[in-house]
Amino acid sequence: MGQLLSNLVVGENVLSANDARARANREQFDQAGIYVINMMSAPGAGKTTVLERTLEYMAGTPRVGVLEGDIQTTLDADRLARFGIPVTQVNTDPGFGGECHLDANMVSHGLRSLPLADIDLLIIENVGNLVCPAEFRVGEDSRVMVCSVTEGEDKPLKYPLMFRSSDLVLINKIDLVPYLGFDLPALLRNLDAVNPGVPRLQLSARTGQGIEAWCAWLIAQRNRVEIP
Amino acid sequence: MGQLLSNLVVGENVLSANDARARANREQFDQAGIYVINMMSAPGAGKTTVLERTLEYMAGTPRVGVLEGDIQTTLDADRLARFGIPVTQVNTDPGFGGECHLDANMVSHGLRSLPLADIDLLIIENVGNLVCPAEFRVGEDSRVMVCSVTEGEDKPLKYPLMFRSSDLVLINKIDLVPYLGFDLPALLRNLDAVNPGVPRLQLSARTGQGIEAWCAWLIAQRNRVEIP
Repeated sequence: MGQLLSNLVVGENVLSANDARARANREQFDQAGIYVINMMSAPGAGKTTVLERTLEYMAGTPRVGVLEGDIQTTLDADRLARFGIPVTQVNTDPGFGGECHLDANMVSHGLRSLPLADIDLLIIENVGNLVCPAEFRVGEDSRVMVCSVTEGEDKPLKYPLMFRSSDLVLINKIDLVPYLGFDLPALLRNLDAVNPGVPRLQLSARTGQGIEAWCAWLIAQRNRVEIP
Repeated sequence: MGQLLSNLVVGENVLSANDARARANREQFDQAGIYVINMMSAPGAGKTTVLERTLEYMAGTPRVGVLEGDIQTTLDADRLARFGIPVTQVNTDPGFGGECHLDANMVSHGLRSLPLADIDLLIIENVGNLVCPAEFRVGEDSRVMVCSVTEGEDKPLKYPLMFRSSDLVLINKIDLVPYLGFDLPALLRNLDAVNPGVPRLQLSARTGQGIEAWCAWLIAQRNRVEIP
C-alpha cells in the first residue's frame, strides 16, 4: 500500500509539472497566433500519410509546421522534408528515457528549432500509442485521433481515454472496408458510447477520399484564432 | 537534473521489483509444467483473432489457457469463452492505475483464477501497445509479436525494443497485401536490422493462411518443456 501510494504521488507530480509546462507552451502559441493540433493514433494508423495529403492540399496556405514525435528515427520528418515546410523531430529515446508519448517538456524542446513566426498551423504528430499520449497535454488547441478501420470496431471501448479526449476522429483507410470483416456502424456506436457526438470524418489518405473535408475542418479551426 | 535522476531511480526500482515477481511466476509455471507465451502487438494487429484460429486448430491438444490483458472491458475474453478453455481477464485500469502494459504482478493476480494443473500452454495476450509491454518480463518462456502489414514497413525501426525482444514475429493480415502499397521485403529488411534472423511467419488470421505453421511452432516449443 505504501508502494502504491508513493507511485500515485510521483504520478501526480509528473502530471502537474507537465500541465505547468503545457500552459507555457500554450502562451507561446498564443503569442505567435498559431493554432495547434495534437494528432494521435495507434502505430501505423496512417498519421504521416494523412499529413502528406494535408500538406499537398494546403499548398502553403495556411502555413503549416510539423513537430514529429517518435521514440527513434527521423523517418517521418524525412518523409515530410520534400514539402519545404518547417519540420522538427523529437526523439523520446535519447535524453527522454524512451518515453511512449510526447509530453509538454519534449514539445517545448522541439519548439526551439521551429520558426514560430512563419507558422499558422502547427501539427504535432505524437508517438503511435493509444494509451499514454492521451494523458499528457502539450499546449494544443485540439486533439485529432486517427483510427484505422483495420484496427477493428472495439477500440473506443478498449482505449476510452484516447477516444474521449479527442475533438475530431479521422476514420482512416476507409478504402480497405470491402476487404475486411469490418462493421462501420458498430465502430460509430462504440465511439458515441465513450464520446457522444464527437465529430468524425471518413478518410482514405491513400485515395484522397475525405482529405478536402478534413482540411476544411482544419482551416475553420485556424480561422478562429485571433491574430495578435 | 535532480528530477531526472530521481525518475531514473524510481524506474529502476519498479523494473527490479518486476523481475523478482516475474521469477516467482516463472517458478509457478515450471512447477506446473506450463509453456508460456507473452503475445504482444499494436492495437488491432489481430492478436485475439490469431488466438481464435489457434484454439480451433489445437482443438484441446495441447490444453491451452489464456490470460487476457486490457485496460478496460472483457471483450477479448468474451470472444474466447465459446472454446470452453480456461480464460481470465486482467484489466489494468481498476486497481492498477490504467497501465498501458501487463507487468509480472498483474499476471500473478490473473494466475489465481486459472486452473494451472489443467493447462499445458498459457498464452498471455498483452495490452495493445508497441512500447511499454516490451519493458516488463512476466515470467514467459517466449515472446511472440504480431505485426500487421497494414501498419507499414517502418515499425521495427521505430519501435526497436519490441521487435528486438521477440522470439517469433507473426506477420499478420497478409491477405491484405494486394490492396496496400506494402513492401514486404522492406519490412523483412527492417526486421533483420533490429533482430537479425528472428523467426518470422506470414499469417492471415482471417483466411487461415499460416495458422498450421504457427501452431506447429507452438507445439514444438511446448514439447521442449520437461513435465514435472
